[in-house]
Amino acid sequence: MKDSTPLEIDEALQKAQIAFQTYKNTSGAQKAILLRMIASEIENLGNVLITTAMEESNLPEGRLVGERGRTVGQLRLFADLLSEGSWVEASIDTAIPDRTPAPKPDIRKMLFPLGNIVVFGASNFPLAFSTAGGDTASALASGCTVIVKAHPAHPETSTLVAGAIWKALEKCNLPKEIFAHLYGRSADVGKNLVLHPLTNAVAFTGSFLGGKALFDLANQRKKPIPVFAEMGSINPVLLLPEALKNRAESIATQFAGSITLGAGQFCTKPGILIGIESPDLDVFTNYLAQNISAIKPATMLYDGIAHNYDYQRLITLAQTGVRLEAESATIAEKDQAMPTIASVAAQDFLKNSTLHEEVFGAFALIIRCKNKQEMQEIVQDLEGQLTATIIAEPDELLANRDLVEDLKAIVGRIVFNSVPTGVEVCYSMHHGGIFPATTDSRFTSVGASAIKRFARPICLQGFPEQMLPPELQSTNPLNIWRLVNGKWNNDKV
Amino acid sequence: MKDSTPLEIDEALQKAQIAFQTYKNTSGAQKAILLRMIASEIENLGNVLITTAMEESNLPEGRLVGERGRTVGQLRLFADLLSEGSWVEASIDTAIPDRTPAPKPDIRKMLFPLGNIVVFGASNFPLAFSTAGGDTASALASGCTVIVKAHPAHPETSTLVAGAIWKALEKCNLPKEIFAHLYGRSADVGKNLVLHPLTNAVAFTGSFLGGKALFDLANQRKKPIPVFAEMGSINPVLLLPEALKNRAESIATQFAGSITLGAGQFCTKPGILIGIESPDLDVFTNYLAQNISAIKPATMLYDGIAHNYDYQRLITLAQTGVRLEAESATIAEKDQAMPTIASVAAQDFLKNSTLHEEVFGAFALIIRCKNKQEMQEIVQDLEGQLTATIIAEPDELLANRDLVEDLKAIVGRIVFNSVPTGVEVCYSMHHGGIFPATTDSRFTSVGASAIKRFARPICLQGFPEQMLPPELQSTNPLNIWRLVNGKWNNDKV
Repeated sequence: MKDSTPLEIDEALQKAQIAFQTYKNTSGAQKAILLRMIASEIENLGNVLITTAMEESNLPEGRLVGERGRTVGQLRLFADLLSEGSWVEASIDTAIPDRTPAPKPDIRKMLFPLGNIVVFGASNFPLAFSTAGGDTASALASGCTVIVKAHPAHPETSTLVAGAIWKALEKCNLPKEIFAHLYGRSADVGKNLVLHPLTNAVAFTGSFLGGKALFDLANQRKKPIPVFAEMGSINPVLLLPEALKNRAESIATQFAGSITLGAGQFCTKPGILIGIESPDLDVFTNYLAQNISAIKPATMLYDGIAHNYDYQRLITLAQTGVRLEAESATIAEKDQAMPTIASVAAQDFLKNSTLHEEVFGAFALIIRCKNKQEMQEIVQDLEGQLTATIIAEPDELLANRDLVEDLKAIVGRIVFNSVPTGVEVCYSMHHGGIFPATTDSRFTSVGASAIKRFARPICLQGFPEQMLPPELQSTNPLNIWRLVNGKWNNDKV
Repeated sequence: MKDSTPLEIDEALQKAQIAFQTYKNTSGAQKAILLRMIASEIENLGNVLITTAMEESNLPEGRLVGERGRTVGQLRLFADLLSEGSWVEASIDTAIPDRTPAPKPDIRKMLFPLGNIVVFGASNFPLAFSTAGGDTASALASGCTVIVKAHPAHPETSTLVAGAIWKALEKCNLPKEIFAHLYGRSADVGKNLVLHPLTNAVAFTGSFLGGKALFDLANQRKKPIPVFAEMGSINPVLLLPEALKNRAESIATQFAGSITLGAGQFCTKPGILIGIESPDLDVFTNYLAQNISAIKPATMLYDGIAHNYDYQRLITLAQTGVRLEAESATIAEKDQAMPTIASVAAQDFLKNSTLHEEVFGAFALIIRCKNKQEMQEIVQDLEGQLTATIIAEPDELLANRDLVEDLKAIVGRIVFNSVPTGVEVCYSMHHGGIFPATTDSRFTSVGASAIKRFARPICLQGFPEQMLPPELQSTNPLNIWRLVNGKWNNDKV
């Protein structure tokens, strides 16, 4: 696919801006129909979507079928959210005309869509975080138009999904220009999209370098705009002693799976496992090593990502004090990620910032601490993370509240006795985290709350009932939950 | 007062960071007691606070007594919000262990405080937007520590209020270091505060140049942080023909008051009044001129702001096509703002960006449009604004939905048939707006929602009940409203 030209980018945004005038006032019910229709049209693409994605991403069929399920599931979750309707955070303060010294006016507010959202497709989820992925679904749900830059690693998959979105828009009698689909291998395409004056916000999932560059561009605009960049992290795992003593083998099996899932190409892949030196940690390390050597290398998304993995893996293994613990017993072929476990002493880790960087692929580093104090020192030294995990017995967790507090300071999600991979798409998910994990720790890119990224409150003071959107009308025709004079209810006012 | 040194700034933040470890886990009930205690201690300062503020700000006693009422009212509003407790947006998804293909884990999230917040006192509200103003109150309510940079125009007032806060902290047995009070005439103090690695967010109310500089500094940090800068605007007023025809005189009286309230030193002062050329607009202009000439000049906050007003006023009056309509009949003394109304044709306004800039003080510009199309052209041409106002008959408003839609694209609040000054402190207020009115249109600096600026969600997955904060415990001990599996209720789970 040829890169979209500046002229094509400008045309897409000009047309989106016009389409937004219609779409922003499309009802929640209508938007829900659209999202369900997009889901159906994606399903209607049938097997060709799966085979195309397999060819472009090297991901296996089972994974992509599952990912398609997740993609249509996300679209339907946002449809449910719209049908229910309370997501707009409607708030009503009724007038008190006889208040002294001054009357209180009638004041009502709710969330309204931001405008035109530029979405960068992510390579590691060619369906669920790409063309009709979580960013697009949540932006369309909020009432925003979407301009997708297809990820150059899967342009054909992206084109197929774009077609499904357009078909759904047509069936819903909505302007085609609510959604635009552009191509770009060159960084200039992304740059021009972020700098375009009609762009109102940006969503991105990918590398730190990519996300940070977009964030900086957006802030250097004459009118800065929000950038929601999810840039990955090393997702620390704390292995507490009692748990290791009681179930080293099952923990090792669980984490071998999590580290190598999808060739380790998940932003929530556990990258460092922090334990306290003991025979139990050695037992755990041995079990993990056994598991890893039995796992076969898998082909990565594309050659660039595979080269990068090899390079990062070798750099990490070459650092002072780093010991290779295990590799897959099977030799990696071209573009395959060699599952690898290494270990390092806490003091060597603390001294070496290279070891704090994400190795994107099936690699994890065990950090051997002398005692709990060193473990805590590491946690306090870490940069922002998407997730952290604590493996502990319940009583052990209670006895280590201080570690949980330290983790809270840097992460978006803390997992207890499970693995961080497999981010549940639900109402309570927060897939975010402190910079550099994301550029905005207050918002999530997974789950129902992702819609909040693309909306802002507007307050209407003294408006007559007929001029209020249904969400703010006194009769509450949508029967939604609202904050009325500071109290939650779904009543009429 | 001497400027705080880099060493003092560092010490304040180091100590705040330690105090935050205690304060972040202080219960909502305890924080509510603290906020009410701060309010009482401010009241306990008695008349010395008012006389000191009068001397430093040149504002009259009545205004400052009212502003003190607003300040303690804000503190008590946040105390109410904490006592009720639902502001944390608690959300619970319960586990489905037997779900296929994978079990659903138990996932819960809520808002947690960001950390150490730097608050810049504003000159135009020496009480309500300064040391214990809305920013400090909402940050303390969220569980954050606060480092105030006193505004150099009222250091003594600020010191008195800081004393009240410390006294309240002491009475509540909370660490004194939850609140710090620094001084700075030099821009370096603000710069060092924003760049300090332990600063987690910044709140500012003031000029565009000041706010934008802080925003840029914060984004250039190794770890960028949010800046909530409220930078003012020209707050357009649309005067629709029927309303002018029916009640030109009362509208003129109302707006003469709003334009000159507090010497025009409000960020919501109506700066441009947009009408369609007609005899009714002339009648309105004459009434407004009569009103303005009868209003006496008032002393501005400090000499710099008065000089700036004179300069901006003269620059504006010197622009092509600008006609002076009225000034106060009373000669302005030193540091007084001369109430002034000017007018200009729409085409001259559209061509001249100088006329789009805020004149901070008792000045407004009437824009004469040939027709509705020109009025709409102006609205579409305006930059982001805190507020817009529409003066119209109810039917006229209904017939001009397109104008309302255009206003929504740029403002945080739309006022119908009233004045934009007098920002109500309540649950539904949104005092925000598109850049350059603020640096983050998604958040408000006035009203209960201001607390949301200083918190972010953290998600806890698979946590045992005893390790969950009360807000997320299944028994719902605080009896708060929560989103449980996507449904709002205040039940146990």
